[in-house]
Amino acid sequence: MIGTLGPKGSYSEKAALQWNHKADLRFYDDIFDTVDALLRKEVECSIVPIENSLEGSITLTLDLLLEHQLKITGEVIVQIRHCLLSRGKPEDIKVIMSHPQGLSQCRKYIKNHFKEIEIRSSPSTSLSAKLASESKEIAAIASAESAKMYGLDILNENIQDVNENFTRFIVIGKTTPSPTGNDKTSIIVYLEKNRPGALYEILGEFAGRNIDLTRIESRPTKKILGDYVFYIDIKGHIEDKIIKETLTKIKGKVGMLKILGSYPAAK
Amino acid sequence: MIGTLGPKGSYSEKAALQWNHKADLRFYDDIFDTVDALLRKEVECSIVPIENSLEGSITLTLDLLLEHQLKITGEVIVQIRHCLLSRGKPEDIKVIMSHPQGLSQCRKYIKNHFKEIEIRSSPSTSLSAKLASESKEIAAIASAESAKMYGLDILNENIQDVNENFTRFIVIGKTTPSPTGNDKTSIIVYLEKNRPGALYEILGEFAGRNIDLTRIESRPTKKILGDYVFYIDIKGHIEDKIIKETLTKIKGKVGMLKILGSYPAAK
Repeated sequence: MIGTLGPKGSYSEKAALQWNHKADLRFYDDIFDTVDALLRKEVECSIVPIENSLEGSITLTLDLLLEHQLKITGEVIVQIRHCLLSRGKPEDIKVIMSHPQGLSQCRKYIKNHFKEIEIRSSPSTSLSAKLASESKEIAAIASAESAKMYGLDILNENIQDVNENFTRFIVIGKTTPSPTGNDKTSIIVYLEKNRPGALYEILGEFAGRNIDLTRIESRPTKKILGDYVFYIDIKGHIEDKIIKETLTKIKGKVGMLKILGSYPAAK
Repeated sequence: MIGTLGPKGSYSEKAALQWNHKADLRFYDDIFDTVDALLRKEVECSIVPIENSLEGSITLTLDLLLEHQLKITGEVIVQIRHCLLSRGKPEDIKVIMSHPQGLSQCRKYIKNHFKEIEIRSSPSTSLSAKLASESKEIAAIASAESAKMYGLDILNENIQDVNENFTRFIVIGKTTPSPTGNDKTSIIVYLEKNRPGALYEILGEFAGRNIDLTRIESRPTKKILGDYVFYIDIKGHIEDKIIKETLTKIKGKVGMLKILGSYPAAK
């Protein structure tokens, strides 16, 4: 059983089926509940969005990875093609609804086409589509699949501000997959002392061994302003000797090192 | 005339008055319009949020800094104390409304106290308060000042999930202030080639000169997934010889260097 963000028609469902097309899915209301389902052992793994090519990090996912003992066991990349869906005509629409990421990814489209519209966020694009089916005054920004599912017309297709739009999802599970030769390892580090060069030193451990850093993202520690943890993705698997050695070295230099997991890189 | 996010009662108003308590303010509907007012020369400077100690970056602000020719000329830090405001009693409330940051900063509070509530985002906390004054079924997450301004009761005070909650605002203007001895410089760099060690090399220019890096944040280039620009804040002023020399060095090594400005660090 895979937990993912619902209701049916979400991009998360697409990600889950891309991960395992025979998967038995269980849908949750929001990212928090999807991760919580795994912690409560209601599902074997959960699939949640972590990063979009236009809007960047899904910060709630990052925060949950820091807060709980979770293991990333895979990643899936899904192409996002937002549509404007409604039962009404464009002139009927008084509210545009979507997940905050959907709204942000179509910011310019909304600004240009609907100057005085009310914008409402909801926990998922597919829930927005479901709610749009209840009133002609509501339009949802969601997938074409949601239109079919909830009996909506597609008023406009591919409305995201930049045509190429991809979201990376992570699979959170229990066991670290064996090395495949094309893996990624995700970690979180807290440098403790904000001394000049602390981050530089850590990155030097990777650079010195020619380990490719595919992503670095900072998040606030939520303690004081200007205090951060760093989320770092590198190429390689924790079972690779060079990766293991590097992480051991880093562990001795930082306030906190959390290994989120090693998993095959998505193609 | 200073442009900021309105209506009256917003934390942005607080930031603007903290910056200049005699300022003549002009309020705008959202961050986009606030910055646009400066570009259209309707105001001399604009004050917008850039970072919160719980929720991290205000990504729209970061994206506008990349997209337009804007100069950061100052920063202001404001303590955030969210309240739940309504004309109704807690049992009347069917909708909770706030700026997305306000909603995120109070996520646990909402989850714990209002299980089946409808969450609506709006472009500012003070607009949410204004809208809450129109119906007993709406509660806003906003400042205590907004309660007075829009005739609302404070149902709960200090409801953010972490008590210490600060937002950093930037002043965007025209002229770079002279060095004060306690300044910050903000830049954006694009490394072009995603080769191992590229970021490490850039950070080395700072570390090697003992220049303190106060913040590093990545944002997607919006071109392809996994391609980023880096927003970097360092201690020092562009007129300091060492900073000028470092930035010249970096310019030769990166695909793009954008200097956002030098300004006195907030206390």
